[in-house]
Amino acid sequence: MKNTRIVLLRHGQSVWNKENRFTGWANVSLSELGENEARNAGIKLKENGFNFNFCYTSMLDRAIKTSNLALEQLDSLWIPVEHDWQLNERHYGDLQGLNKAETAEEFGDEQVHIWRRSYDIEPPQVSEDSSFYPGNDRRYQELQHSQLPHGESLKDTYDRVIPFWNENIVPNVEQGSDILIAAHGNSLRALIKYLDNIPDDKITELEIPTGAPLVYEFNEQMKPVKSYYL
Amino acid sequence: MKNTRIVLLRHGQSVWNKENRFTGWANVSLSELGENEARNAGIKLKENGFNFNFCYTSMLDRAIKTSNLALEQLDSLWIPVEHDWQLNERHYGDLQGLNKAETAEEFGDEQVHIWRRSYDIEPPQVSEDSSFYPGNDRRYQELQHSQLPHGESLKDTYDRVIPFWNENIVPNVEQGSDILIAAHGNSLRALIKYLDNIPDDKITELEIPTGAPLVYEFNEQMKPVKSYYL
Repeated sequence: MKNTRIVLLRHGQSVWNKENRFTGWANVSLSELGENEARNAGIKLKENGFNFNFCYTSMLDRAIKTSNLALEQLDSLWIPVEHDWQLNERHYGDLQGLNKAETAEEFGDEQVHIWRRSYDIEPPQVSEDSSFYPGNDRRYQELQHSQLPHGESLKDTYDRVIPFWNENIVPNVEQGSDILIAAHGNSLRALIKYLDNIPDDKITELEIPTGAPLVYEFNEQMKPVKSYYL
Repeated sequence: MKNTRIVLLRHGQSVWNKENRFTGWANVSLSELGENEARNAGIKLKENGFNFNFCYTSMLDRAIKTSNLALEQLDSLWIPVEHDWQLNERHYGDLQGLNKAETAEEFGDEQVHIWRRSYDIEPPQVSEDSSFYPGNDRRYQELQHSQLPHGESLKDTYDRVIPFWNENIVPNVEQGSDILIAAHGNSLRALIKYLDNIPDDKITELEIPTGAPLVYEFNEQMKPVKSYYL
């Protein structure tokens, strides 16, 4: 029996990636380069014979647009696409919107390094009257208060991504779906940590390039046996 | 209690609309004008305070792209979007791809008028080895043979649109969803015939402009009470 393949795709460059700002759940769109990266991802997937019949994205425009642009190249705009908050980027709390260099000047390099590269330390939390608090955003109105983050560590992100993987995506794969997942640097890091069993102190150093389709092959027990970028 | 509102949106101009060709289920994309029409539809809907939480489109790129472009303007790319073949354009059989003026030269004006404006006369049928036969298109692989059209009259289109409306869309509205439907000249004609009880010989003359949001207001029994273009 052929291995099952799932493709992970980090969204193309966003406007704030380009401006070196903390983004998190801020709904920033793709840059022109990011849109081209997304189209090129679709072209590469097509050249490699991928035919998806289901796509998961986060609730954020930059991931949704990445999948739309890639799927259009694959003549697959018509497949079901599900948007799930569990695949969102790590919520960067009160750092969202700040320039990373300026933040380092204000708080010191070491503190910013801790916020960015520790596994379980949360950033400064947003207050509930902030526009960056998800409770003030219509798209998260179905979530319970306890599900709405104020600022996440990578561990917090892991703790929502992995249950979603096990309870939603894996059963869909087991029913025979060929799946594309368009998401974010940290939600994909969390998933890769789980799939490849990467220790806490190593995973935060893993860099995932934007717009590069990452193929995971699974055996019949849904254990990953191989992974590679196209 | 406030009336329920549903918005019908015919896709923006497609490349074949522009070239005056019969399109049907051929998967032709939007022209640049069509993309702008779709964005403008989103802007108008936003100005009028619409906040959708569910969208239906056909399986065809020009309707899917129209809804994507409109929803992006509404900051609603994240809402669930369902793609259903029942909302596809009327299948134009063996006429698909032909220029309307050239077809009139070949078959005569009267015959072309009959194909275009009669309610229940089917166009010449596609053979099952044609690339225009939906059985040869991956997106329709879940359909049964009896559901795959070879060339439809407007009546045939009506006979798939209206059951879909009653069995899928109406129950969703009754659960409180605010719905956008992005579809096609003839699938929307069929729906409007049903909603406004328009006779067979009148409906084929009804023109629906591209990219113009058409609002229907319904009472609690889901009877239409009012309709208007934004």
